[in-house]
Amino acid sequence: MRILGIDPGSRVTGYGVIITNGQELGFIACGTIRMAASPSFCDRLLTIFRDLGEVINTHGPEVAAVEEVFIDRNPRAALKLGHARGAAVVAALHNGLEVFDYTPRKVKQAVAGYGQAEKSQVQHMVRALLELDAIPTSDAADALAVAICHAHHVTHHLHRL
Amino acid sequence: MRILGIDPGSRVTGYGVIITNGQELGFIACGTIRMAASPSFCDRLLTIFRDLGEVINTHGPEVAAVEEVFIDRNPRAALKLGHARGAAVVAALHNGLEVFDYTPRKVKQAVAGYGQAEKSQVQHMVRALLELDAIPTSDAADALAVAICHAHHVTHHLHRL
Repeated sequence: MRILGIDPGSRVTGYGVIITNGQELGFIACGTIRMAASPSFCDRLLTIFRDLGEVINTHGPEVAAVEEVFIDRNPRAALKLGHARGAAVVAALHNGLEVFDYTPRKVKQAVAGYGQAEKSQVQHMVRALLELDAIPTSDAADALAVAICHAHHVTHHLHRL
Repeated sequence: MRILGIDPGSRVTGYGVIITNGQELGFIACGTIRMAASPSFCDRLLTIFRDLGEVINTHGPEVAAVEEVFIDRNPRAALKLGHARGAAVVAALHNGLEVFDYTPRKVKQAVAGYGQAEKSQVQHMVRALLELDAIPTSDAADALAVAICHAHHVTHHLHRL
């Protein structure tokens, strides 16, 4: 099974694709979609939607795991982030993927063993778990981490059945 | 020019399509997309995206005018509403429409003459301006109102040039 992990943001959206057979994990691709250069917020949303669509067409994941975003105290920031996450979720659904949500805490637990792990710890653990040659950027690592989290969740669920 | 007005919400999204020649306004269609029946929030987002896509394909608007949402004090509600509005904006952009934003205040000013107009006043004014046989529902009226707001904006702009 190929899993697309998405870490949505209103400026940068991270993505990562992994493969799992229920036991082993394999790295397929990862990267970031940068929207800072886009002239308008609408264009940024379309960039997220289109670029994720391209990632899906290129790497063929069957499911998407999307990190639930941290709820800022600032409603305006939350609204903006909601737009970005909505565009990402719609990109996955429109391309036929099933979508699963994971809280940042669950994602950190899955890759680093505890929910309060630092960003750098997530990056190092993702590198180790996927046997990468280099440390992925923070946004790409978070996206790979949510994909790994889903892989663990599915495997755990399968073993329990 | 055909204008699609959208009043996005996380439970109900209103839409309305009008036509204008720069002087007169004509009614084409209006309605609501209800997501309450959908089992998950993700499904609701896909419903907004797909149903607006159908409206666009059926009625052929060239531009979309989307109401800026009221920013709730509750960041969780703002995040949710952001998802819905993001899905609506992406639906318009993905289908080739240019997207314009208008604040609720500007919309009310455009149809009722002042920014603090009641919902029922907006409904009555939309009915009068478009010469409708019946009063549209509140969500559909808000969507038609934002489309009318864009029509006024464009006309005003044209006359000034």
